[in-house]
Amino acid sequence: DNRAILLVKCPDKPGIVSVLSTFLYKHNANIIESSQYSSDPENGNFFIRLEFHCENLQAKSADMEEEFVHIAKDYNMTYDFYYRNERQRTAVYVSKELHCLLELLWEWQNGDLDTDIVVVISNHEDARSIVESYGIPFHYIPANKDIRKEVEAQQIQLMEDYNVDLLILARYMQILTPEFVGHFENRIINIHHSFLPAFIGARPYDRAHKRGVKLIGATSHYVTNDLDEGPIIEQDVERVDHRDDVATLKKIGSRIERRVLARAVKWHLENRVIVEGNKTIVFH
Amino acid sequence: DNRAILLVKCPDKPGIVSVLSTFLYKHNANIIESSQYSSDPENGNFFIRLEFHCENLQAKSADMEEEFVHIAKDYNMTYDFYYRNERQRTAVYVSKELHCLLELLWEWQNGDLDTDIVVVISNHEDARSIVESYGIPFHYIPANKDIRKEVEAQQIQLMEDYNVDLLILARYMQILTPEFVGHFENRIINIHHSFLPAFIGARPYDRAHKRGVKLIGATSHYVTNDLDEGPIIEQDVERVDHRDDVATLKKIGSRIERRVLARAVKWHLENRVIVEGNKTIVFH
Amino acid sequence: DNRAILLVKCPDKPGIVSVLSTFLYKHNANIIESSQYSSDPENGNFFIRLEFHCENLQAKSADMEEEFVHIAKDYNMTYDFYYRNERQRTAVYVSKELHCLLELLWEWQNGDLDTDIVVVISNHEDARSIVESYGIPFHYIPANKDIRKEVEAQQIQLMEDYNVDLLILARYMQILTPEFVGHFENRIINIHHSFLPAFIGARPYDRAHKRGVKLIGATSHYVTNDLDEGPIIEQDVERVDHRDDVATLKKIGSRIERRVLARAVKWHLENRVIVEGNKTIVFH
Amino acid sequence: DNRAILLVKCPDKPGIVSVLSTFLYKHNANIIESSQYSSDPENGNFFIRLEFHCENLQAKSADMEEEFVHIAKDYNMTYDFYYRNERQRTAVYVSKELHCLLELLWEWQNGDLDTDIVVVISNHEDARSIVESYGIPFHYIPANKDIRKEVEAQQIQLMEDYNVDLLILARYMQILTPEFVGHFENRIINIHHSFLPAFIGARPYDRAHKRGVKLIGATSHYVTNDLDEGPIIEQDVERVDHRDDVATLKKIGSRIERRVLARAVKWHLENRVIVEGNKTIVFH
Repeated sequence: DNRAILLVKCPDKPGIVSVLSTFLYKHNANIIESSQYSSDPENGNFFIRLEFHCENLQAKSADMEEEFVHIAKDYNMTYDFYYRNERQRTAVYVSKELHCLLELLWEWQNGDLDTDIVVVISNHEDARSIVESYGIPFHYIPANKDIRKEVEAQQIQLMEDYNVDLLILARYMQILTPEFVGHFENRIINIHHSFLPAFIGARPYDRAHKRGVKLIGATSHYVTNDLDEGPIIEQDVERVDHRDDVATLKKIGSRIERRVLARAVKWHLENRVIVEGNKTIVFH
Repeated sequence: DNRAILLVKCPDKPGIVSVLSTFLYKHNANIIESSQYSSDPENGNFFIRLEFHCENLQAKSADMEEEFVHIAKDYNMTYDFYYRNERQRTAVYVSKELHCLLELLWEWQNGDLDTDIVVVISNHEDARSIVESYGIPFHYIPANKDIRKEVEAQQIQLMEDYNVDLLILARYMQILTPEFVGHFENRIINIHHSFLPAFIGARPYDRAHKRGVKLIGATSHYVTNDLDEGPIIEQDVERVDHRDDVATLKKIGSRIERRVLARAVKWHLENRVIVEGNKTIVFH
Repeated sequence: DNRAILLVKCPDKPGIVSVLSTFLYKHNANIIESSQYSSDPENGNFFIRLEFHCENLQAKSADMEEEFVHIAKDYNMTYDFYYRNERQRTAVYVSKELHCLLELLWEWQNGDLDTDIVVVISNHEDARSIVESYGIPFHYIPANKDIRKEVEAQQIQLMEDYNVDLLILARYMQILTPEFVGHFENRIINIHHSFLPAFIGARPYDRAHKRGVKLIGATSHYVTNDLDEGPIIEQDVERVDHRDDVATLKKIGSRIERRVLARAVKWHLENRVIVEGNKTIVFH
Repeated sequence: DNRAILLVKCPDKPGIVSVLSTFLYKHNANIIESSQYSSDPENGNFFIRLEFHCENLQAKSADMEEEFVHIAKDYNMTYDFYYRNERQRTAVYVSKELHCLLELLWEWQNGDLDTDIVVVISNHEDARSIVESYGIPFHYIPANKDIRKEVEAQQIQLMEDYNVDLLILARYMQILTPEFVGHFENRIINIHHSFLPAFIGARPYDRAHKRGVKLIGATSHYVTNDLDEGPIIEQDVERVDHRDDVATLKKIGSRIERRVLARAVKWHLENRVIVEGNKTIVFH
C-alpha cells in the first residue's frame, strides 16, 4: 500500500499550502484528499491533513521525511507522517457491559476498523469467551481503588509488551490516575452517556428519567486529567419520551454509545482527529 | 365545533378506562383520540387524554360536567374539560432577538397554532412594527432589575386586561420573580439553548465553541421557581463541527430554538402536555 | 407471565372502547398500555391494541376468549389475543451478506427480541458457523430459479417442522413465488435499500452514486404478491455526500438495514403492527 | 471586501494543488478555505474550491485573472473567479403556496443569504403584498400551457432587464420549456417533495398516505431538460406515522421544503456547488 497521511500544525501565514503541495509534487506524490482549518483568521494556527499516494513509498519515505525536516523548521511546524501499511495496534478495556466491545469487534472483523486489536483488558471475566473466539488475547486484571497503582503498573507493562498505540475504554468502569493517563496522551478514547442537562454524578439515567428529558445521548472523547472531560471527538443523541422507563433509556443509551464510539475510533485510526487545546478538529 | 378534550389524572387502579369511556358513550360522545400513561405499575398515577366529538356539545357540556363531578370524586381524579371552540389567549414576551416571535406569528397566521395571540410585551421597541403589521397590540415596557416589581405589576395587570391563558417567553431576556411565576403556574413556556455538556452561566456559545462540541440544541420548558429549569416539553439538536464559528453556532442555535418552541407551544395549545412533578407527559 | 395483548379491528362506532374496557375490568384485568386509531372519522375502521395484566391469566384465558366471542359478533370485530408466555417462533432466511442476521442474533441474545429463533435457512454456507455457535439449527438449501418450486416445497416443510410463526428475510436474495408467500400472509418481513429517487432495478447503489443522492435509506415491509412492495413497517435514512464511493454507500446502507429490520421485527413480535390494505398501523 | 473564490475543474494529475497554491501565494493571497475532490483515482476529474483573502483585491484581480489564463491552458482547466463584493442577483418564481418564498425572504433579511433578491415573478397575485412590503418589485404574469411561449419570452426579458444571475423556483407550478431552461443552465434551482418510494405523478401525498410511508422528504435540484430531475443539491426527510392525515403530511412536507431550498440556495450563492454530469459536488 503506497498511501500515507501528513498531518501538520503551524502558525498560519501565506504560502503553507504552496510549500506543502510543491514538496509532495516534487516527490511524485498525488494528493488524494486534503482538509485544512485555520483556528483564527489572524494569528491563529493552521492545520492540514494531506492524504497522498506515491509509487514505491516505502523506499522513498526516509528521504521524504529527512527533507521535510527543513520545511518544518522554516514554518515552525509540528507534524507526523502516517503510513497506511503500518497499522496501529489497539487495546480495548472493558468491564461487564459488552455492547461497545462487541460493536468494535464486529466493525473490525468487517474490515471497517483499520487496526490490529492486539489485546483486551478487563476487571471482569464476562468478555473472555467472546474475545478469545476472535483469537485475541484476554487479560483479566481485577481492579478497585485500593490496588489502583499496582493494577495500572501491570496494565502499563502489558501496553508495552503488546506495543499498543491506542487504548479504547469501551465501558471500562475504573478511574484512571493522572500517571496512567500521562503515559498515553491523546491516545485513550473513552465513551460515556450525555444528557441535556448533564446529570453529573450517580445514577444519571434515573435522574434523566425523573426529569423527563426528551433526548439522551453519548459522547466519545480523549481522556485527560481535567476534572471534566477531555476533547470531544463525536456525539450523538436519540429521541425518547415519558413512556421509556429507566431500563429502556439505558438500552437506547447503549445503542448510541456503540455507534458514537465506533465512529470516534474509526476517525482516530484514519488520523482524522487533531487535538488543539481542549477541543478537536475532525477532518471527516 | 363539537370537539372537546378531557384530561384526567388519578391514582391508578382497574376500571378507570371503563368508567370514562362508558361515561362518554352514554352522552353519545365518540372518542377520536385517546392516550394514556401510568407512572408506575404499582401505586402510580394514571393519566389519560381523551379527545371526543359530540353533537350539540355546547348545549350538553354543563350537564356532562355536572355528572362528571361524581365520577371524579369516586376515583379521586383531578381533571379538566377543554372545548375546541374556546380558544386559548396567548401573550408573547420578547426582547431584541425576534426569530422565535417571527416563527410563532408565521405558524399562527398559517392556522397551525390554535390560539389568539392577543398581545406582545417587550422591553425593547424592535418588534413593534412587525407585531403591529399583524394587527396585534404591542406594549413596550422597559425593564431592569431595579424596577422589576413595578414592571411585573404592570405586566400582571396587562395579562388580566387581555385575559391571557398562556405566556410565551420568546427570547425575553429578563428574570421573572417567584411572585410573577406564581401567578401563571404551568402557563409560562420558555425556550433556551442546550449543550452537551451544559455550559451553565455566561457566554455559553463561546464556551461550547472553545470546547469543540459536536451538537448544539435547544430546550423548551415550563417556567418554575426551581433554581434549575422547569419541566421539559421539547428538545432538539443539530450537528456542528470545528469550522462553525461562534456566530454560526448562534445562528444554528436560533434555528433550533424556532422549531422547538413552536412545537412546544402547539402541543400545549392542543392540551397534549401534562405536568407531573418536575417532568412532563406529552401525548403527541 | 400474566400479560396479554388484545388486537381488535372493527367498523368505527361509539361505545367500542367502553365495551372493551368494561370487558377487561370485569375480568380483573388492568390495562397497561392502550393505543387506538380510526382510519376515517366517518364510516372508517377502528383499531385498538390493549396490553393488559391479569392474575392467573392462563387459568382464565379460555373463559375470557369464550365470552369475547359474543362482543366480537355484536361489533363485527376481527381480533386476536396474544399471550406473553407464548413466544413466537422465528425463522431467518439469509444469503451471503450477514449483517442483518448478525444484528438479529445480537438483539436476540441481549433479550431485546422476544422470540425463539428456531432455524436459519440459507442458499449459501457462509452463515453456518456463526449460527451454529448460537446453538441454532442451520439448513443449507441451494436455490436458483430453475428449482424454485422444489426449494420452496422443502422450505415450507421446514417451516411446518419447526412450527414457525414469523419468517425474516435478512438479505435473502431469492425471489419467492406467490404460492410461498400465500402460506405466510403478513408473516414474512423483508428489508431492502431505499433511495430518493427510487432506482428500481439493477445496481441501485451505482446509480445512486452516479446521481449524487444526498440521502440513502432502507425500508422494512411485509412481503406480498403485489408487483411493488408490501406494507411498510419502518424506514430510515442517513446523509451521504459526493465523497462517498459506491463501496461506502453500500456500507452505510447495510448499517441502516441492520437497525431498520431490527426495529420492524421487534414491533412485529410485540404485536404493534397491524396491516390494513397495503399500509401498516404501528402502535409504538 | 477582499475575498474571492476560485473554482477549478480539470483532468486529475499530480501538481495541481501545488501550481494553484503557488499562484495564490505569489499574489499575496491567503487561502481561507480549501476543498477538493477527485471523481476517480485514475483518469478522473479534479475539482477544487479555494476561498482566499487578498489585500487590494479589486485593484489586482484583472492582473491575476490574466496570469491565470496560462495556468488554465497548461492544465486544461475550466474555472471561475467569484468576488464577494459582487453579489449575485436573484429572481424568485412563486405560485400560490408561499412558504418557500417566505423562508427565503426571512433568511435574506437576516443577512443569511448573500444575494440581492431583485424581483419576484408569479402567475398569481397572492405574494404581492408580502413581496412589496420588503421593497422588492413583484411581477404578475398569468401563465398556462396555451400561452407558455409568450409568458416565457416575457420572463426572459425581465431576467435580462433585472440582470438576474440565479432563478429560484419556490413552488412555481408551471412547466418550463427546454428553450427557457437553456437560457439559464445550472442557474435555476427548484424544490419538490420526495418520497420512498417515489410516487411519481399526480397527488403524491394522497398516495404516500395510502401506502403508509414512514418518512417524507424534499429535494432541491438544478433544473435540466432531462425527463427526470436534474442534479440534486440537497435532500432531507422527516418521520411521519399512520396518524398523520394528508393535510398534516403536506404541512410537514412544506416545512422540509422550506429548509432544504434555503440550504441549497445558500450553498449555490457561496459557490459551493459544482455540477458534474447529472450530479453535484457540494463543498460545505
